[in-house]
Amino acid sequence: MPRRVWVVGAGAIGSLIAGHLAQLAEVGVVVRRQEHADALNANGLRISGKSQLHAQVLAAVEPAQLPAPDLVIIATKATQVAAASRLLASQAKGATVMTVQNGLGAEDLVTSEGDWPVISGVTFMSGTRHGDAHVEYELDTPTWIGPYAAAPAERAMVDAVAELFVESGLRAEAFDDLLPVQWSKLIFNATVNTVSALTDLPHVGLFARRDEVSDLGHLVHDLVEEGRRVAESAGVELHDDPWEMNTLAVSRGETGEGDYAHVPSMLTDVRAQQRTEVDFISGSIVREAARYGVEAPLHAAMYRVVRAREASWSGPENWRV
Amino acid sequence: MPRRVWVVGAGAIGSLIAGHLAQLAEVGVVVRRQEHADALNANGLRISGKSQLHAQVLAAVEPAQLPAPDLVIIATKATQVAAASRLLASQAKGATVMTVQNGLGAEDLVTSEGDWPVISGVTFMSGTRHGDAHVEYELDTPTWIGPYAAAPAERAMVDAVAELFVESGLRAEAFDDLLPVQWSKLIFNATVNTVSALTDLPHVGLFARRDEVSDLGHLVHDLVEEGRRVAESAGVELHDDPWEMNTLAVSRGETGEGDYAHVPSMLTDVRAQQRTEVDFISGSIVREAARYGVEAPLHAAMYRVVRAREASWSGPENWRV
Repeated sequence: MPRRVWVVGAGAIGSLIAGHLAQLAEVGVVVRRQEHADALNANGLRISGKSQLHAQVLAAVEPAQLPAPDLVIIATKATQVAAASRLLASQAKGATVMTVQNGLGAEDLVTSEGDWPVISGVTFMSGTRHGDAHVEYELDTPTWIGPYAAAPAERAMVDAVAELFVESGLRAEAFDDLLPVQWSKLIFNATVNTVSALTDLPHVGLFARRDEVSDLGHLVHDLVEEGRRVAESAGVELHDDPWEMNTLAVSRGETGEGDYAHVPSMLTDVRAQQRTEVDFISGSIVREAARYGVEAPLHAAMYRVVRAREASWSGPENWRV
Repeated sequence: MPRRVWVVGAGAIGSLIAGHLAQLAEVGVVVRRQEHADALNANGLRISGKSQLHAQVLAAVEPAQLPAPDLVIIATKATQVAAASRLLASQAKGATVMTVQNGLGAEDLVTSEGDWPVISGVTFMSGTRHGDAHVEYELDTPTWIGPYAAAPAERAMVDAVAELFVESGLRAEAFDDLLPVQWSKLIFNATVNTVSALTDLPHVGLFARRDEVSDLGHLVHDLVEEGRRVAESAGVELHDDPWEMNTLAVSRGETGEGDYAHVPSMLTDVRAQQRTEVDFISGSIVREAARYGVEAPLHAAMYRVVRAREASWSGPENWRV
């Protein structure tokens, strides 16, 4: 098992990973703000909710200040992976690098900066940051990992990382080929995240309602089916049915956990007027559709509306033809 | 020419019509709030901007308080036409009724409440209400009218109404068949209003930009083309090309009038968290497509997202499956 792990990015996902893995490994956390590093070094990292932990971590803005790792987990937003990979370029020479971003394309950004072996990851867990040194663990759903085909980590290393996750209290599973999982979540995210971002609705029952012609569930279903056709054209058979993922998630929100409804990250970004990950999510589906010569008009529509919504925050000088 | 006119609804459009027509006719204004009626009766109606007028009108909440009219112009939102028509049912027996709402279907709501001869209207003018008794006339673009086929007003009456509009300082034109004009504006509105409402952008140059695959102009163009196919299936040849209406409108905003950019009414409604007219606009295209057996997936998508956006204001009890 990896003994020394760097986690790059300490948002909700990065913090959950760092806090758990620190139970079994020496964890270094790379963050962008010095005060964030100071808070983690002074107070440790507290996890509440589904786990109750208080982890010691070593945090820094400059990776060079941390002892060299066996494993680097890039847990930034997709929009920050290129910068994170550049920061690592002259570091972490012998390490394996793992990505956990939404969408497709994070691994390519990593391999363009260095010749690390790469593990692809998809995570379904979620949490809420309550401060620089405290995150609440909400959905304790799994992280799925596998060797990245174009620069594969050894399967034994993938298994060891999965074991490290599981023994530290997270859920994880290793696969030979992660693409069927990645595409399932890609289609789910391209659907649920964009619909949520544009309607200002958390992921609630309306996403599955298909009674009237105006009901939102029709659009959700159509987006899923369009995404499935793009995956098929790319030769990928989905691991999970994104429509079932949708209905399961909204029924869980409505029954098992009372009125809990997940706020997808893209809605959080839109509410905060922060650039979203839509280029990596809907944008990936649109690019793959073009590459394989199939149509994806609904995902293209959602992509363009979210991008224009982002443009609405930047002021009239950017709105001209 | 009509001598006594009622204008039902005194939003921006109703106020512009009432204020101008009062220069030549006796105008009664039917409003929903007594204080609105009081303000109009006390102060008259002031118009600034493209016209400078101060009109005397007789305003009331109950139509029975007004002298019987030759012509009734229903200038409410599409969502209020049914209620307005019911209010008129026992009144205005011999009058002609004219509609000016966005979308399709307002005339049907009128004829289901009474056997008035009906004039269909489409208006392109716009203004901003600055208070109950003051409206600013912004775009002095025309109003186009024609007999409604299922309950037609006489062509001579249509011409007389057009003449009344023009002589009172508005722009207007009479047509034998208004459907090609109505469909042109329907497609324009179903495109520009929904895109604006969901992106929070006024009608700006981005709506015509088609450089990158993520550019909004592609979606605007695709929505226009999809709408044109529905119109063709309904046997309607468009009077104007909605894509050219789009490019003309954004270039006018960017050159002729400086940084002016029109805020479509659906965006105004969304910002105020008021129910939009999307059922009459995108909903009409979706219903007509179903009636003629053609596909309208992009307009259906926009329709469903706007409806779900409206639902986001009504609280979790309405979000369940």
